[in-house]
Amino acid sequence: MKVNNKNYQTVWFKDSSVFMIEQNLLPFEFKIFESKNYLQTCQAIKTMIVRGAGAIGATAGFAMAQASIESINFNTEKKLSFLKKALKNIHETRPTAQNLFMASDRVFQKAIISTKDAILEAQDIANEDAMACKKIGELGNTLIKQNYKIATHCNAGWLAFANYGSALSPVYEANKNGKNIFVWVDETRPRSQGARLTAWELKNENVNHKIIADNATAHLMSIGQIDMIITGADRIAANGDTANKIGTLEKAIAAKYYGIPFYIAAPSSTFDFKMASGKEIKIEERSQNEILYQSGLNSKNKLEKILVASPNSNAFNPAFDVTPAELITGYITEKGIFNRIQHGLFDNIA
Amino acid sequence: MKVNNKNYQTVWFKDSSVFMIEQNLLPFEFKIFESKNYLQTCQAIKTMIVRGAGAIGATAGFAMAQASIESINFNTEKKLSFLKKALKNIHETRPTAQNLFMASDRVFQKAIISTKDAILEAQDIANEDAMACKKIGELGNTLIKQNYKIATHCNAGWLAFANYGSALSPVYEANKNGKNIFVWVDETRPRSQGARLTAWELKNENVNHKIIADNATAHLMSIGQIDMIITGADRIAANGDTANKIGTLEKAIAAKYYGIPFYIAAPSSTFDFKMASGKEIKIEERSQNEILYQSGLNSKNKLEKILVASPNSNAFNPAFDVTPAELITGYITEKGIFNRIQHGLFDNIA
Repeated sequence: MKVNNKNYQTVWFKDSSVFMIEQNLLPFEFKIFESKNYLQTCQAIKTMIVRGAGAIGATAGFAMAQASIESINFNTEKKLSFLKKALKNIHETRPTAQNLFMASDRVFQKAIISTKDAILEAQDIANEDAMACKKIGELGNTLIKQNYKIATHCNAGWLAFANYGSALSPVYEANKNGKNIFVWVDETRPRSQGARLTAWELKNENVNHKIIADNATAHLMSIGQIDMIITGADRIAANGDTANKIGTLEKAIAAKYYGIPFYIAAPSSTFDFKMASGKEIKIEERSQNEILYQSGLNSKNKLEKILVASPNSNAFNPAFDVTPAELITGYITEKGIFNRIQHGLFDNIA
Repeated sequence: MKVNNKNYQTVWFKDSSVFMIEQNLLPFEFKIFESKNYLQTCQAIKTMIVRGAGAIGATAGFAMAQASIESINFNTEKKLSFLKKALKNIHETRPTAQNLFMASDRVFQKAIISTKDAILEAQDIANEDAMACKKIGELGNTLIKQNYKIATHCNAGWLAFANYGSALSPVYEANKNGKNIFVWVDETRPRSQGARLTAWELKNENVNHKIIADNATAHLMSIGQIDMIITGADRIAANGDTANKIGTLEKAIAAKYYGIPFYIAAPSSTFDFKMASGKEIKIEERSQNEILYQSGLNSKNKLEKILVASPNSNAFNPAFDVTPAELITGYITEKGIFNRIQHGLFDNIA
């Protein structure tokens, strides 16, 4: 998608480097980060230079391709041991994102054969991700009526994928189709991906929107200001339970209470059929400083971090929650829109 | 309650000045603000130097007492006109708080008679508020079991009242009784009264607690980490519908979904029997800058305001929401604990 009238992907591979939009600096500064080796790419995933299910997946695939390049002159035994170590390191960067495991595993299998195959596989994963998101937009758009007010949580836009996005892809498609839509953007504390990334994306694409405190969603539902909710997913279990950014669960419960459709938009790669239910999903706990401190632009237009909570109090910071399938109206995937009451849920995907 | 080992009330009256804890500077700086005339006191309510239902009520009463002093040498006609104007100005400072109207109306009635009566009435209102909160603590404590994990939203502690608090008063009482309780503190965006004021209060009173993003409450419920929720109220309609800080509604819906008791703690002065239901409650909309900017301590320990959202995006900032009575387990008041299924709800209060 476009930034300053130039087309970008969220993450791409050139020679042996992984290039990515530095998302920790957005929306205040637009900068490309170059990672020259797989460990640096692991670090980039960990520090959230790149974030979002699909973008993490693509980056993890590229990291594995880098590991393959780095081990190109090793003998078979040493290479296998190096690649296994790399796979383990990549797996350990972020515990919740299903795409991370899928992508690095796929590229690992090719890396055992050849580095060229590994690089091609990583490229394929990024392309598949972008194409799946494009399809999600086309399918999701069929659910959106004229003048709809849509709420979304966190950022499941193009910055969270190789391109297009999941939850925002139908929004972009509907907007292009002149449906006069409006988007309520949950700020999504503690990292404010909504207020920072989703708002930035929507502004760039000329989609009408307003940022709200996460606390305001149920209120807007109660006064008839939300027609549907679409969020992304980090992992979807076999029964449809969905792990996504902390707060998604609360929105889904409120939507159920008010009878408002609540959709999950995610490429089929987000489904993890090895997991019977959401109970098995491990929830990442992140640093309390994400809650206690907040960064942004000061009056001199410099990025600054300030303490926003009472000194000497601690915080608890779970990064995700699990929304039970019973709260989810449907799943918008590149293979179709599914709903849980359908017989043989997700058969087309598995 | 205690600050730096000295006893304070949130707001008090001496000579013709209203003194109040400057709550916009908390938790980073502890400072007393002196307001020398009623218009300055109105401004203090507007700019939230003082906030919280009971504290606003007490301050509004004192403001009316100041207006009475300021009009002491006017003739009857001019005095009445001045007092009516003052009442209107006080009413217009904050649209949602029921106590503001109750207190200023009561003092106005006395101010027509004499300034001395007006001052005594204002003092009475502040004392009644503190005593009601003390009683709420004693009654609410009977609902709290050993080792309970309690969640609260916003600040309904002693800083929100003349003293003791509403939602936190039972917490303080249970803590004094050695019940080994733990409090989850919603940070309560956009103004973060939870992370700043509630956490500051709990720390001063040695109550175990952790701050959480507002998004995390439902998740904590889903993993069995919340035994009950207690919040305050800004206004309670005759049918039990309750206006409170934005986000309260979302917590109540989630509590209902998980079968967790959700209590409102409020002095009986918070009930507005002229309002049949919450539908009539006017919701204050505040500046979008409360969402787009955040203030706190920078690395040089100076208060600084930073932009935390995408530049050029707007925000919508409703300050309150209305929780329907069907979601509320009970109302903890100084006159007893009531629940909505009881016959003749609130008869003892009205």
